[in-house]
Formats: sequence, structure tokens, C-alpha cells
Amino acid sequence: MNKLLVVGTVAFDAIETPFGKTDKILGGAATYISLSASQFGVNSGIVSVVGGDFPKEYLEKLNAKNINTDGIEIIEDGKTFFWKGKYHNDLNTRDTLITDLNVLANFNPVVPEEFKNTDFLMLGNLHPAVQMAVIKQIPVRPKLVVLDTMNFWMDNTLDELMEVIAKIDVITINDEEARQLSGEYSLVRAAQKIHKMGPKFVVIKKGEHGALLFNNGNVFFAPALPLEEVFDPTGAGDTFAGGFIGHIAKSGDISFENMKRAVISGSNLASFCVEKFGTERMENLSKEEIEKRLLQFKLLTQFDIELS
Amino acid sequence: MNKLLVVGTVAFDAIETPFGKTDKILGGAATYISLSASQFGVNSGIVSVVGGDFPKEYLEKLNAKNINTDGIEIIEDGKTFFWKGKYHNDLNTRDTLITDLNVLANFNPVVPEEFKNTDFLMLGNLHPAVQMAVIKQIPVRPKLVVLDTMNFWMDNTLDELMEVIAKIDVITINDEEARQLSGEYSLVRAAQKIHKMGPKFVVIKKGEHGALLFNNGNVFFAPALPLEEVFDPTGAGDTFAGGFIGHIAKSGDISFENMKRAVISGSNLASFCVEKFGTERMENLSKEEIEKRLLQFKLLTQFDIELS
Repeated sequence: MNKLLVVGTVAFDAIETPFGKTDKILGGAATYISLSASQFGVNSGIVSVVGGDFPKEYLEKLNAKNINTDGIEIIEDGKTFFWKGKYHNDLNTRDTLITDLNVLANFNPVVPEEFKNTDFLMLGNLHPAVQMAVIKQIPVRPKLVVLDTMNFWMDNTLDELMEVIAKIDVITINDEEARQLSGEYSLVRAAQKIHKMGPKFVVIKKGEHGALLFNNGNVFFAPALPLEEVFDPTGAGDTFAGGFIGHIAKSGDISFENMKRAVISGSNLASFCVEKFGTERMENLSKEEIEKRLLQFKLLTQFDIELS
Repeated sequence: MNKLLVVGTVAFDAIETPFGKTDKILGGAATYISLSASQFGVNSGIVSVVGGDFPKEYLEKLNAKNINTDGIEIIEDGKTFFWKGKYHNDLNTRDTLITDLNVLANFNPVVPEEFKNTDFLMLGNLHPAVQMAVIKQIPVRPKLVVLDTMNFWMDNTLDELMEVIAKIDVITINDEEARQLSGEYSLVRAAQKIHKMGPKFVVIKKGEHGALLFNNGNVFFAPALPLEEVFDPTGAGDTFAGGFIGHIAKSGDISFENMKRAVISGSNLASFCVEKFGTERMENLSKEEIEKRLLQFKLLTQFDIELS
């Protein structure tokens, strides 16, 4: 069974959407990524940090999904990272109301001994210095290193981010971030420029408009499933990334053909994530539901036009 | 050979994009639709109106593509409809600088005798009263009637528009217009509501984000081809519609399966349209180029994920 190490935030989120609001609930990039990847039955572990206020039940929830939490440091006299946000009516935009870094402010990641030989490494959205610290703790290069990041790090820590980008295989960012990072409006040209920064594979996430996978002149597009109702978009991007790396880690196949399936798997899982608040839907998701919706992706995109 | 009647504007456009600007060039919805549909070798004709200022060469250009222009009324002492627009840097939004209706203001469409038994009818974006006048001149209902319209008519002539919508089979509108017409944000729900207004098929155009086809609970998605450079988006939506109806008119097949191919054909042709100013690219487009790009659409979207 392939090992997958996930680095990222484990957090409290408080979410408000047009459909309701939550108190502090389980959130964080590593949480969503791991829950999504856990659908593929890989041997996964998280590297993160939480405070003494983080409920043991949350860790047990993750353990119940076969996610190793030994790498989640607990700082007993500290507080867990907290994010509060409010979505606008279109659910495509949101205001961040609170970002309390708390224990994340001084996070020194430590990779557990058992994951130092991880086959796959997923660097969730975090300070690039933390991402780099994890890369340096892994002596044998993993088969594939995937990086997620965001505009905040491009604005504030670009040099450090570029050093990380030079070391990874796959970058996942959204369309605006791809444009910012490359200085190109066309996503085709943006991907070309980002390839030159290091990543052989560039995944551009477009939210409700799907995702593009670029590799060496090849391009593949996975749509988002058109849904009757989007309840809470929180974690959809991380769930996409988790489905992507989970699919690859399960198969061990890092070919472009298999990455196509991986972006479809990621889109599929993200389509569930948004149906309920927070991680609720991802915690209660059956193999049958996933397969049924994969069939919908096939029906949505497959056609048999003949070329003469 | 199936007959296709296209109703819509034949116009002068003056276009400004970040890459350059044009004087008055050939434009109009019926022009783009017909040029696009002409790729499929159907027997097509236009119903429209122009002024005495409209160059004979433009009509000859259309005739050279086997497009019948007998239904284009020429009002010798009138002036042709003129539109001037300027695109913003992202090419997704534009300002309309001039709209001179001219001869279009009093347009009474007359369907030529030879097209009164048309197999397919494409109602391009126009005043709904004009669209209805054409429907009423065709005694035997065509196999398929496709309607394109826009928010302007929803704002200003909604009752007349709803009467037309009740009589047609396929509506093509953009995502914002679908939301406006239905009062639903979710495009799935918007399509459900629009079905109830009459059209069995709802095509929602999302520009660079592709197009969705809805029919009776089924949904299909055609992406836009990711392009290195978009030069001028003018006419892309009409070119899409022309490719859609052209494909269907050639095959005579109005099944959902064939409409999938039709939206792919429409997206394919639209991807050429935007590569040059105005109609230039559509006037010089080979079968080989079209087929080659269809293969790109296959590579872009087809995957072989296995369901257990």
C-alpha cells in the first residue's frame, strides 16, 4: 500500500452561507485533503499542528478513516488555527471575517519517522517555508510531490514560494492565481510559464467551471458537475486535491493518462464536499455514491463524434 | 439536402480589442451563424435587412459559401445596422459604444418562397416580434427551431419573448441570461424552469468556460478549447449556434446523443472565430483544420476511468 503524507492546516472553521451558519467546526486544508484521499484506501498521515483546545474526537474521526495523526503536534497551552468566513449569495465569493493563526504562527513541522519514506507528498496551502521544511525532511524523493498554494503567498513570500515551486511535480492553483504567478492572461500561456518554474504538471482550478490539467503541451479538462444546490464551498479545492493525489497514490501511476482520471476523481469528490457544511458530507460517503457520480461525469463529458 | 433558414442581423461592426481596431466590417448574428453552418454543406438561406450602403461583395461572399441571400431585403435609401464595441483587457467584457439600428428599426421579415418548407429554423438574436413573424410565415413546422436571444429582450419585451420561447425547441442563452430568465442561480434549476417555458433543450453558453446542454434531466458539457490567444470574441456565440444547428441540419438527427456532437461542433467552430477580427477566420477555414481541432476536443475531454 502506497504511503501518502499530507502537510497542511488542521483548524476550526466558522462558516456562514446564504443557507445557514456554523459555530467552530472541524476544518483545515490537511483535514479536507486527507478525508478525500482516504476514499482510496492509501496509508496516509498528516503533518500539522493544533492547540490544546482541539477535541480528541476530531483526531479520532480522522483515525477512523485510517488517517495517521501522529504527525499532528498538539501544543497544549496554545489555540488551534481559526478561520471565519461568510459567503456571498452567489457562493463564488466570500469575505474572511477572522483569521487567528494561533499555534500555526510558529509551526515547525516534524515528519514522523514512519512517513520519511513516503511514496507521495501533498503540500497543502501553507507558508512556503513550512512546505520547504517538510521537503527537506524526506531523504528519498517521493514519486510525486503536489503543491497547493494561494495568492497570499505570491503577494507576501514570493521568493520562498518560488523555491518550493522549483522542487515539486504538480502545482494546483486557481485561474486568477495562475495569471498572477505567470503574468499571462491566457491559461495556456500561464501554464507554459509555470512549467518553466519547475512543475511538469499544472492543474488550474476554476471552481464551478471545472479544472484544467497541463503537461508538456497536453491539456485535459474536467468539468465541475452541475449541481442543483451548492450548500457550502468550503474545502472544495482541498477535497479536489485530495481526490487527485488519492487516486494517484492508490494506483501508483503518474502518467498523464492516469492524471486525467485523477482530476476527474478530484472533481467528483469535490462535488460531494459542497453539498453539506464543512466535512460532514465527506465523513459519510459510500463507495456506491462515488461510483454512481463517476458515471454522471462520463455521461456529462463523453461523446462519440466521428472523424473522417 | 436539408434546408436551414437563418433569421438575424446582417450588419456593420466596428471592433476594438487590446490587439487592434477595425473600421466598419461585415458582422451580424445571421452572418456568423450562416458562415459557421456553411461548413456542413446544408442548403441555407438568410432572412434579414440591410441598407443601400451594404457592399455587394459582402453578399457575394455569403453566396460563395452557398448561402442564399434572396431573403436579405435591401432598402436602398436606408443604412445598414451598425454596432461599435470595445473589449476590455480580459476580453470577457465589452462596452457598446454605438448601436445604430437604422433599417433594422422597421424590419418586416419576409421568408422567401423557397424556404417556407425549411427543415430547420434558426432564430438569431433579434426583437422577438420579428422572430415570431418568421415563425408564422412557415406553414409546416420545421423539425427543429432554435432560438438565440439576450438580456436586452428580457428587460424590454419579456411578454413577446415568452411567446416565442413557448414555440421553440432549443434555446441558447448565456449563464447570466439563464439566471435572469428563470430567477434561479443554479444552472441546473434554471434549465428545469426554462424547460417548463417550452424548450425541450436548453443550451447555456458560458464563453471561455464552455457550454451546457440540458434535456429532460440529461446534461452534457462541452468545454471551450483553451487557446493561447483570443484575438476578437465578436461573433463567437453566433458561430457556436451556427455550428450547432449546422451539425444537426446536416445529419437530420435531433436526438440528445446527436445534440452532444452538435455542441462540440459549435464549440469547435467558435474556437476558430475568435482567432481573427470579425468573420475573417470563418471565411478561410478548411475541413482539415476543423477535423484536426475536433480531435483536440476529444483529447481534451475523453477519459477511460473504470467503474467497478
